[in-house]
Amino acid sequence: MKLSKLGEFGLIERVRKATPKGSGVRVGIGDDAAWLECRSRTFLLTADLLIEGIHFNLQWSTFYGLGYKTLAVNLSDLAAMGGSPAYLTLSLGIPVDFKTEDIEEFYRGVRFLAARSGVSLVGGDTSAARRFFISASLIGHCPYAPVLRSGAKVGDDLYVTGTLGDSALGLELLKKRKGKTREDAAEYLVSRHQFPSARLKAGALLARERLARAMIDVSDGLLQDLNHLCKASAVGAVVWENALPLSPAYRTLAGQKRALHALTGGEDYELLFCTRRRDRSQLEKIQRRLGVPIARIGECLPASKGIKVIDGGGRLASFTVRGYDHFKSRP
Amino acid sequence: MKLSKLGEFGLIERVRKATPKGSGVRVGIGDDAAWLECRSRTFLLTADLLIEGIHFNLQWSTFYGLGYKTLAVNLSDLAAMGGSPAYLTLSLGIPVDFKTEDIEEFYRGVRFLAARSGVSLVGGDTSAARRFFISASLIGHCPYAPVLRSGAKVGDDLYVTGTLGDSALGLELLKKRKGKTREDAAEYLVSRHQFPSARLKAGALLARERLARAMIDVSDGLLQDLNHLCKASAVGAVVWENALPLSPAYRTLAGQKRALHALTGGEDYELLFCTRRRDRSQLEKIQRRLGVPIARIGECLPASKGIKVIDGGGRLASFTVRGYDHFKSRP
Repeated sequence: MKLSKLGEFGLIERVRKATPKGSGVRVGIGDDAAWLECRSRTFLLTADLLIEGIHFNLQWSTFYGLGYKTLAVNLSDLAAMGGSPAYLTLSLGIPVDFKTEDIEEFYRGVRFLAARSGVSLVGGDTSAARRFFISASLIGHCPYAPVLRSGAKVGDDLYVTGTLGDSALGLELLKKRKGKTREDAAEYLVSRHQFPSARLKAGALLARERLARAMIDVSDGLLQDLNHLCKASAVGAVVWENALPLSPAYRTLAGQKRALHALTGGEDYELLFCTRRRDRSQLEKIQRRLGVPIARIGECLPASKGIKVIDGGGRLASFTVRGYDHFKSRP
Repeated sequence: MKLSKLGEFGLIERVRKATPKGSGVRVGIGDDAAWLECRSRTFLLTADLLIEGIHFNLQWSTFYGLGYKTLAVNLSDLAAMGGSPAYLTLSLGIPVDFKTEDIEEFYRGVRFLAARSGVSLVGGDTSAARRFFISASLIGHCPYAPVLRSGAKVGDDLYVTGTLGDSALGLELLKKRKGKTREDAAEYLVSRHQFPSARLKAGALLARERLARAMIDVSDGLLQDLNHLCKASAVGAVVWENALPLSPAYRTLAGQKRALHALTGGEDYELLFCTRRRDRSQLEKIQRRLGVPIARIGECLPASKGIKVIDGGGRLASFTVRGYDHFKSRP
């Protein structure tokens, strides 16, 4: 059915009916505002935009996958603060010739991950638009003091969860093959791009144990996000190319540009964090409970040293620290 | 300066610097999420979309006015629950050829109303987009139990704050004159369209005194919003056309279609609420403290009666209860 037949209020009613009333939700979808419970004295709030043709492409994304990813990228922001996700709003701009089924598929993707991560969809807005876009806000509880970007000190160890570069390489493969992948390795990378895992458990544990002094999620690319963290903490950093955690699939398919995606490719949604050197043994002790492997990839230097990458031969590799900037034209 | 020169991170840095750190904000713009204080055990959350060419037109809107209105329409949602506004996120999709100055003008409009209403801008997102759009989320404290749409009972009085139809008539005048107005009356109506007042004081007092049993803000048009309220409360209603509060400017300029805009025109951002008949005298007593006049415009009927309008001659007027539906094509 075309959306223009169901109408805006028809769509909202369908979404409302399909949405379970979650924990802490006194009033969800359908009033002027949602009425929500706060578990402690503070909470976290993050917001993300996803726009067709910029953040995603319907040629190689499914509506279900988009719904999943919309929530995942917001979960990742909360993970990077050590928060516990709770309430989601979704505002959608939808072309009027879209099918109702596609939008419902989008919400199914959201609901799947919402159920798994304890998130309740509590409101939002919908409107006609020329291009499909999604604006999400996610609120999280603070069981522990949040980990900011600004707490890193010179000499701190630099760690990252999981593996890097998978998502960027997966997207590259998707574009080439227009959605059709055959090999297992390629499928793995594509799934890392389409269904990223937010590191909620790791983020919460690192906050609880007060091990992470500064933390950020890797959404724009390792060097770009490291740059954000270093700026906020007024430190520099060195990254050892040899220490970058790469998945077997990535090693198989990355070819010549082996370090490139791992250093600059976006959308990994892993956590990058700094710890005191003397906490190494404690970090090793809790490692299994993080739910994801971690790798020590470098350390914090004085701010005057900037951000350096040392390549496999011990040489200083030159990388421009630049991730995606939406308003700047690219070479 | 073109936005493409300043870049996304340049823009965010400018907005961050110009934004005062507000009350209750532990971490605002610039980390993975904002870290915010909760004043009581619950809070309110609302979200609104504004899209160029659908919700506004840059031919007859200023960037400053858009910033102001973006916050105003969200404040109005909180007013309708009796809430107290606190934290705002703004996600903007911006065409890359926009001027930096225009976007800063937009934020100035937001900041002006934010300062007046105790709101802190704490985050959001920005991206390039083909058309300008704004997605806002606003969080409010709950000093009193929120007033829902669902509490109206048969026999309740129906009240509205302020005057109706000004905004729709103001927009009509704006379109005709392409932004140039001369008469005082027209200027008044245009300002009602461009700089609506959210009825925060009235909403909070009606919640505090437990006078409003059901409440909604008039954003889609009186009959449409009354329909939302009646559906949520499972009642019907009668509205007396003669009792509709009309401004002198509206009376001067509305011409033949006198009741039309007042009954169906959107964006008045007045409060529509229901009270027990026996609370009339108490309502009169606190009337001055509401900060805005109120008018008794009808009463709640059994659901089977639907929604009726009685015209000046005591006849049943026929109005299709239909406000704006973004996905439905219009006749």
